[in-house]
Amino acid sequence: MAGANSVRLAVLPGDGIGTEVTEATLAVLEPLAQRHGLGITVETLPAGAFHYRETGEAFPESSFRAARAADAILLGAMGWPGIRYADGTEIAPQLDLRFRLGLYAGVRPVRAIPGVPVALADPRARDIDLVLIRESTEGLFHSRGKGLVTEELAEETLRITRATTEKLARFAFRLAERRAAQRGRPGRVTLVDKANVFRAFAFMRGVFDGVAKAFPDIASGHHYVDAMALDLIRRPWDFDVLPTENMFGDILSDLGAGLVGGMGFSPSADIGDAHAVFQPAHGTAPDIAGKGIANPTATLLSAAMMLDWLAARGAGQAYADAATELEAAVDAAFGEGLRTADIGGRDGTAAVARAVADRI
Amino acid sequence: MAGANSVRLAVLPGDGIGTEVTEATLAVLEPLAQRHGLGITVETLPAGAFHYRETGEAFPESSFRAARAADAILLGAMGWPGIRYADGTEIAPQLDLRFRLGLYAGVRPVRAIPGVPVALADPRARDIDLVLIRESTEGLFHSRGKGLVTEELAEETLRITRATTEKLARFAFRLAERRAAQRGRPGRVTLVDKANVFRAFAFMRGVFDGVAKAFPDIASGHHYVDAMALDLIRRPWDFDVLPTENMFGDILSDLGAGLVGGMGFSPSADIGDAHAVFQPAHGTAPDIAGKGIANPTATLLSAAMMLDWLAARGAGQAYADAATELEAAVDAAFGEGLRTADIGGRDGTAAVARAVADRI
Ligand SMILES: CC(C)[C@H](C(=O)O)[C@@H](O)C(=O)O
Ligand SMILES: CC(C)[C@H](C(=O)O)[C@@H](O)C(=O)O
Repeated sequence: MAGANSVRLAVLPGDGIGTEVTEATLAVLEPLAQRHGLGITVETLPAGAFHYRETGEAFPESSFRAARAADAILLGAMGWPGIRYADGTEIAPQLDLRFRLGLYAGVRPVRAIPGVPVALADPRARDIDLVLIRESTEGLFHSRGKGLVTEELAEETLRITRATTEKLARFAFRLAERRAAQRGRPGRVTLVDKANVFRAFAFMRGVFDGVAKAFPDIASGHHYVDAMALDLIRRPWDFDVLPTENMFGDILSDLGAGLVGGMGFSPSADIGDAHAVFQPAHGTAPDIAGKGIANPTATLLSAAMMLDWLAARGAGQAYADAATELEAAVDAAFGEGLRTADIGGRDGTAAVARAVADRI
Repeated sequence: MAGANSVRLAVLPGDGIGTEVTEATLAVLEPLAQRHGLGITVETLPAGAFHYRETGEAFPESSFRAARAADAILLGAMGWPGIRYADGTEIAPQLDLRFRLGLYAGVRPVRAIPGVPVALADPRARDIDLVLIRESTEGLFHSRGKGLVTEELAEETLRITRATTEKLARFAFRLAERRAAQRGRPGRVTLVDKANVFRAFAFMRGVFDGVAKAFPDIASGHHYVDAMALDLIRRPWDFDVLPTENMFGDILSDLGAGLVGGMGFSPSADIGDAHAVFQPAHGTAPDIAGKGIANPTATLLSAAMMLDWLAARGAGQAYADAATELEAAVDAAFGEGLRTADIGGRDGTAAVARAVADRI
């Protein structure tokens, strides 16, 4: 691949189906790049649980440096049952990336894809189109690897900072502005917190409200996290952009994925001021790894988010056009009958890649 | 009401629809007690947001003492928009009760009631019958009112203790044993944690596994909280008893309520070694308060849990029989067409009480 506005893409396939879904995605990016004249150079980097087992390092410093030097990072999935760090926690270089590159905005769209069954009986479920923004560098995860453990008790510290909350809120309002323009409807940002019980969340709410004033055209509100879990079942079609704390976002984004076909259809982007990682929301799926049946849709949609982000960062309009075309091709393929194993069909990883590539 | 095995019941109606649903529930308990010869004396106690506005006290010490002295506590709902403590957090004497009386087991059944619409399209959703057990005295809520707030950041501390985790786990396994016997199917307890990232949850898991060994007839497992949020959408009918940390339980129990008709159908019990509080999972619903349309079903089902708990504590078999009859009457009333406003019907608070009382 070569072209005018060239970008360097670091690919971390990782473990299990991570390698399969990234391969399928690169196979679709190839014709897409050709058609739109994108100059994408790909560098594949080792990291993950198997790499840890072989070398004692889950995320070699050389991989980290190369990823950081790239224009964007595409990640498959990492981790494996039975391969863990000495303290028993999971091998998760994706968490290291979030922290080390300051990727505070974990963008997790929850959108009903044409043809893909939704979980709720209410017909309005086909209109679900919201974005969770999981803060991804602090909150409860601030405590990752730092928890206190004694014989009798264990503690973790949840931390919310003004600086990160301001960035998160600005990110959310800007995204709402873009979505409002694209969709021709008013934008709305709803902070999900637990300010009725915790001072840290009252603090977060105060900072959020301060930022909201700078975006008078976007409606701004708050929702308690428990009420949001309920409303994501009762009326998810009513929400737009939902920023929240790290642990809350982890939970609610999986709930959201469940509404629209599961993890196989749920892309994500971890975005910071200077870097971004794009990856499917799913894990390495040991039960189906190596069988060629993993659903690569989440990774394809993550790649569309990546192209869009690259365009916004100045790589050129061709990247935005390619993003739009890729998402439309995914929608068309499923709308016209493509059915992966996770939704009861027989189309494997390569078949999805072919079906999407055919529509480009 | 008077009879052989008499019990003293403290009723804290609280605010908003709290007063309406407790009134309806007492109206059903009256004939139920007569029929089964239960000797229930009721003492109604003031507490809540309006009491705070009038007196400066949300939960008078006299109310607390009387509640503690009673055999069981029935609570409506408390809190009101615009009436808050000085630090901005909610007036929530129910939280004080959990902490001061050591009510570590927040039992929140999620069960599809005949006739009440379920949220999921999958027909198996009618088989949903699980129980979340929200630890209710520590976890993140350990930090309630104690959070650190500076100009630039705020922190809360999540605490898990061995002692409480052991009690929680034993409670969960015992409940699973009872349910297995009642339902004639194997019992299963699944701890919901985030042990892949946090030491405190790895600690919790270790303690839980230790307790599990004492219950060889009950299957025991673990699930990450994010995966559980997904699976409560994809296959909630597969789960039985789900103990979890306080904040996780708050979120997942609202999710669960959303699956089976909403908060109006979701009872709860906060149970400790010596005391217990029974209350609907919903709040004070300012938007519909005073209109006579609040759904009292959650409170009726909470009262059934209370009668059952009183029986287990030695009040006599008549209490267990009354519990069974009350739950069956609720099921029959909805199964035969009762429809409250929250599920699109026209039956008000008093109509539900009448319909249920008629079936006793
Ligand atoms: C694998 C796990 C550590 C990770 C997380 O909790 O962040 C995952 O659940 C996610 O949502 O990216
Ligand atoms: C009202 C609120 C403080 C309370 C809680 O968070 O515990 C409620 O959500 C509940 O679930 O009982």
